[in-house]
Amino acid sequence: MRWHIPRSHPRYESLMLRERLVEAFEEGIVVPQGLIAHGRGEAFDYILGERSHEFAVEAERVTAAHLILSSKPIISVNGNYAALAAEEIVKLSIETGAPIEVNLFYRSEERIAKIEKLLVDHGAPKVLGTKCEKTLIPGLESPRGIVCKEGIYTADFILVAIEDGDRTQALKRIGKKIAAIDLNPFSRTAQTADITIIDEALRATKNMVNIAKEFKTLEREAVEQLTLNYNNKTILSKAFKTIMQRLEEATAKGFIIEF
Amino acid sequence: MRWHIPRSHPRYESLMLRERLVEAFEEGIVVPQGLIAHGRGEAFDYILGERSHEFAVEAERVTAAHLILSSKPIISVNGNYAALAAEEIVKLSIETGAPIEVNLFYRSEERIAKIEKLLVDHGAPKVLGTKCEKTLIPGLESPRGIVCKEGIYTADFILVAIEDGDRTQALKRIGKKIAAIDLNPFSRTAQTADITIIDEALRATKNMVNIAKEFKTLEREAVEQLTLNYNNKTILSKAFKTIMQRLEEATAKGFIIEF
Repeated sequence: MRWHIPRSHPRYESLMLRERLVEAFEEGIVVPQGLIAHGRGEAFDYILGERSHEFAVEAERVTAAHLILSSKPIISVNGNYAALAAEEIVKLSIETGAPIEVNLFYRSEERIAKIEKLLVDHGAPKVLGTKCEKTLIPGLESPRGIVCKEGIYTADFILVAIEDGDRTQALKRIGKKIAAIDLNPFSRTAQTADITIIDEALRATKNMVNIAKEFKTLEREAVEQLTLNYNNKTILSKAFKTIMQRLEEATAKGFIIEF
Repeated sequence: MRWHIPRSHPRYESLMLRERLVEAFEEGIVVPQGLIAHGRGEAFDYILGERSHEFAVEAERVTAAHLILSSKPIISVNGNYAALAAEEIVKLSIETGAPIEVNLFYRSEERIAKIEKLLVDHGAPKVLGTKCEKTLIPGLESPRGIVCKEGIYTADFILVAIEDGDRTQALKRIGKKIAAIDLNPFSRTAQTADITIIDEALRATKNMVNIAKEFKTLEREAVEQLTLNYNNKTILSKAFKTIMQRLEEATAKGFIIEF
């Protein structure tokens, strides 16, 4: 099923990511529903022109700042996020000092172990998953609500990616501050998060690694300053305006979406 | 992995279709790339409000007319289309007299046989696939260009659904008249087809079955009349305007897309 995609293809990155997802699916890291979710994201990324817009980078800067400044941050990783960006997630964990928890909507201990191994093989310093003490998020039935006590359950700041709306809302209800990577600005996750990163997960994570490196050269106060004036409603509106603009331009050009 | 979806859920139909796709995938009818493609369609259907708009019904009426009036029509069926609408495809074939060809982008004889069996089990009178004389569509490499000589290759009118852009373009180049079911009005298939049905495949096919039944009560000339003034550019523009309107309404309501 593998096919050659020429580097010159205008949608090279997107097609490579798609193949990467299918491979991860064959390895048992991604579930079928994860492939469908990836397709939904692809549609929004396609409309947005498959690049990190200014509204995404601003949310990424504030997220990187919170990962560095929070007293108990965590990066929640599911099958899709691991498949798309394992290497960059590990780099982000190292640069910010935030540990990783493998946490799955379609939970299976075998799949958690596979994702844990993938992250450890990429050099992750701390990954919670198979061996942690488990507890339940109130309002979510088992196995969907299972989390690690020393991870998500006691975290003050959580980065999630391509996350289910019910779970994001349940985490908000117990007072967590949440940053969410989600290409659909209309999803419940995008609407519920404190910081919504409307960007493709691999690009978003790469950007945050670079931002975290830049922050190391700054005073702590300067990084704190960044988080003070953040307004997520403004970010969502900007994303929406960009979608409308892109669609209008496409129609003016005879329905051609350019990259 | 199966879960209960209450009938009262505002997105019940969409969630049921998603589960149907995953089941068909587990049965070997749908490929992983087909699940991703379904997700892309879901995103556009979500924006459009998961209903058959007037621009879709108009295209469905003209397609049903062509299936009835053409001298050699054919319904091209791939894994996703079969998974979503096998029963209704068979009804459409019976009501219009158009035979079916199982034709796959990710071709495997085993998968063709499975889809063929599914359609025959639903009562399809004529299905081309495993046993036909094969030939190649010019401009498409094997195995992607393989079609049945007495089917797609010599047809004058082809209905495709959730089809690849390269294949739609190759069929146009050899002079075929094409109707395409595709939820993304910006896709190459949507832009290339003579008739673009911007609707979910199951809803579109159900509608066409009812339309074909209605046409049986009309004179042939009245049905012909319908096809004369059809303008696909107008249909695409209407779909586009509806997308813009829905997005604007959603933002006005605080980013909530209602169904």
